[in-house]
Amino acid sequence: MIERCCKRVILRPEHLVPADKRFEVIGVFNPGAAQCGGRDVLLVRVAERPCETRPGLLALPRYELSGDAVIDWFPTAEWDLTDSRVVRRRSDGLARLTSISHLRVFRAGDDDGASWTEGQSFLPDAPEEEFGAEDPRVTEIQGRFWITYVAVSRHGAATSLASTDDFETFVRHGVIFCPENKDVVLFPAQIDGQYAALHRPTGGSRFSSPEIWLARSPDLFHWGRHEPVLSGCAPWEAGRVGSGPPPIRVENGWLAVYHGAGDPRAPGSVGEYCAGAVLLDHCDPSRVLRRSPEPIMRPTADFERTGFVGDVVFPTGLIERGDKLRMYYGSADSNIGSVEFCREELLASLC
Amino acid sequence: MIERCCKRVILRPEHLVPADKRFEVIGVFNPGAAQCGGRDVLLVRVAERPCETRPGLLALPRYELSGDAVIDWFPTAEWDLTDSRVVRRRSDGLARLTSISHLRVFRAGDDDGASWTEGQSFLPDAPEEEFGAEDPRVTEIQGRFWITYVAVSRHGAATSLASTDDFETFVRHGVIFCPENKDVVLFPAQIDGQYAALHRPTGGSRFSSPEIWLARSPDLFHWGRHEPVLSGCAPWEAGRVGSGPPPIRVENGWLAVYHGAGDPRAPGSVGEYCAGAVLLDHCDPSRVLRRSPEPIMRPTADFERTGFVGDVVFPTGLIERGDKLRMYYGSADSNIGSVEFCREELLASLC
Repeated sequence: MIERCCKRVILRPEHLVPADKRFEVIGVFNPGAAQCGGRDVLLVRVAERPCETRPGLLALPRYELSGDAVIDWFPTAEWDLTDSRVVRRRSDGLARLTSISHLRVFRAGDDDGASWTEGQSFLPDAPEEEFGAEDPRVTEIQGRFWITYVAVSRHGAATSLASTDDFETFVRHGVIFCPENKDVVLFPAQIDGQYAALHRPTGGSRFSSPEIWLARSPDLFHWGRHEPVLSGCAPWEAGRVGSGPPPIRVENGWLAVYHGAGDPRAPGSVGEYCAGAVLLDHCDPSRVLRRSPEPIMRPTADFERTGFVGDVVFPTGLIERGDKLRMYYGSADSNIGSVEFCREELLASLC
Repeated sequence: MIERCCKRVILRPEHLVPADKRFEVIGVFNPGAAQCGGRDVLLVRVAERPCETRPGLLALPRYELSGDAVIDWFPTAEWDLTDSRVVRRRSDGLARLTSISHLRVFRAGDDDGASWTEGQSFLPDAPEEEFGAEDPRVTEIQGRFWITYVAVSRHGAATSLASTDDFETFVRHGVIFCPENKDVVLFPAQIDGQYAALHRPTGGSRFSSPEIWLARSPDLFHWGRHEPVLSGCAPWEAGRVGSGPPPIRVENGWLAVYHGAGDPRAPGSVGEYCAGAVLLDHCDPSRVLRRSPEPIMRPTADFERTGFVGDVVFPTGLIERGDKLRMYYGSADSNIGSVEFCREELLASLC
C-alpha cells in the first residue's frame, strides 16, 4: 500500500443543498476530475433520497422526463430490503434504487483544493436516466471534456456520453455502452488511429467475475473491437474490478487506476473496495504489462470506513501535478476524498 | 397462432458426423439462412459433447486456439448439474458448458428444401470462442453475407461478426457486442445513413427482464446509439425475449420475428419458447408499430416438444419466397425445422 498521508475528505453531504427540497443529500461521491481554466474541476455524483416517511410504505424515487423527481410509494412488505441501495420486489425480482443521483460541478478555489465553489447541475432528463445519472468520469480530448456516466433506468444500468467545453453547458450524446456496463473511461488520445475506452460489462451468466474490457471507436459514439483486459486475480479484487479514472500516458505505456472488491463468497473476504493500478501497453492497451501486487489504497480512514456503504474507496478522478498524481475518489458512497501519490513511486510498485 | 401446417423437421443430429470423432452430435439447430446462388443456404449450430464417460468425473469440453477440442475432467460432486446445458462449480459459481458448438453450412438441393448438402465448417479458433460459436444469423448487405454469432468463453457470451461471399471462406471481424449479449441481428439495409442491429443485452441487475435493443453503426464494426425497443409484455414472453431472424422490409416498416419465453417464477408459467412478430417503424426502427398479441408459433410437434431442451421453437432464419415467408428454426435445441407463413396473413395478425 503506497498511499500518501495527505489523504483527506474534501466534500461531505452536509456541504450540499438538495436539488429538490423534498429530498435530502445522502452522498456526494465518485467525482470525475479535470483541469479547466488552470484549476481542478470536479463533476460529482450527488445522491438524494426522499425525506418523507410513511408507515408501512417504501418511498422509491425516480426522475420524470421533465427532469422533476417523483416518489412512488409501495407497501414495504412487498420488497426485499437486504441491499439498502437496490431493493427488489419479492413477486418478480424487479429492482429499484432507494436514492436518485444527479451530477454537479465543483471548482477548486485554490491550488490545494482546500475550498470548492459549486457550479452547474446536470440533472437527469432522458428516459435512460429515469433512476439517475451516476459515477461520471471526465477525459479531456483535443480541448473538449468528454463525460462518461452511468444512466440507470428500468432498462438497466447503461453508460452514456456527454461533453462540455466549460462545465457550464453540456451536450448529451446518448447511450454508448448498453446495459449492464459501468466504469467506462476514455483514453485521452487516439491509439493507432482510433479512440479507446476501458469498460466493465457485467453479465448475468457467471462465466466470469466482472472484468475490465477494452473497446475502440472511430468517433467516440460507436464502439467495437471489444477485448478482455483484466480480471481480478488477488483475493482483494477477486469479486469485482472496474476502471477508476481515465488512464494517463506515462513513459512506458498507460497507467490506469481501478477499483477491486473481494468475492463475498470467498472465505475470509472482507468485502472492502480498494484501489489498484495497472500499466497497459502503449500501442495495444489490451495488453497488461505490470500491475499492483496489492492495493495501492485501502479504506482505512473513518470517512472511508463509515457511510452509506462502508469500507469503500472508489477512485474516479486523477490529475497530474508535476511528479505527483492527485487522486479524487468516493469514500463509503458518501464523501469525496483526495490523496496524492508520487508518480514514480506508484509506477515502481507495479510488477 | 397462425403457423401453417407444413411445419416439418429438416435436419436432425443423426444426419451429421461430429467434427471430432471423440464427440457425438447432440444438436443441429438455430440456423442462420440466406439465399446464395438461387438456393437456400443454412449456417447451422452443431452442438457436440464428449462420448467418453468416467465414473465420478464430469467431462467439460472447450476449444484450444488451434481449433482442436479438448476435454477437462472434474470431480462431478464439485458441480451443480441443475441446468444440463450450463453447469456451475459449487465453490465459486463458475459456469461451464457441457457441450461445445461450431457452425456448419448446409445448401438446399432443391427449391423445397427436401434435401441438403453439407458444406464448410466454421470452427472456433479465437480466445472468445473457447466454449463455442452459437446461434448464427445471416444478413445479406450489398451482396455480402454478414454473420452475427454468439462467441462463448470464460469471459462470457459475446456476439462476434464474420462475413463471407460464398459460404466457402469466412472472414472474422471480432467481437461487436460485449458480454452478455446474444440474439444480434443486422438489418439488410442502411437506415438514415447508418447500419442498424437489434440486440439483446442481458444484465445482472434485474432492473428488467431481457429486452430487445436497437443500435446503429457507421461501418458494421462499431456500434452505438443504443435504445430499448421492446420487452416481453404478454405472459408467454414475460421472462425473456430476443430477436430471431434479421428483420425484413415490408410495405409499412420492418417485420421482425423474435422468440419469447415465460417468466419461470410466474404462476402457471409453462416455460416454453415461442415465436412472436413485431412491425417496426421504417425510419425509426426503435418504434414498435404493431406486434403479435399471441405467439405466431408454439412448440406443438414432437420434434419441438422433445429434445435436449424441450418445448422450444427458436426462429433464426427467414427467406422471402413470393407471398410466402419460409422460416427456419431450432426446435428443442436439437433439430432444425421449417415452416411457411403467408406474409399478408402474418402482417394482418399484428395489432
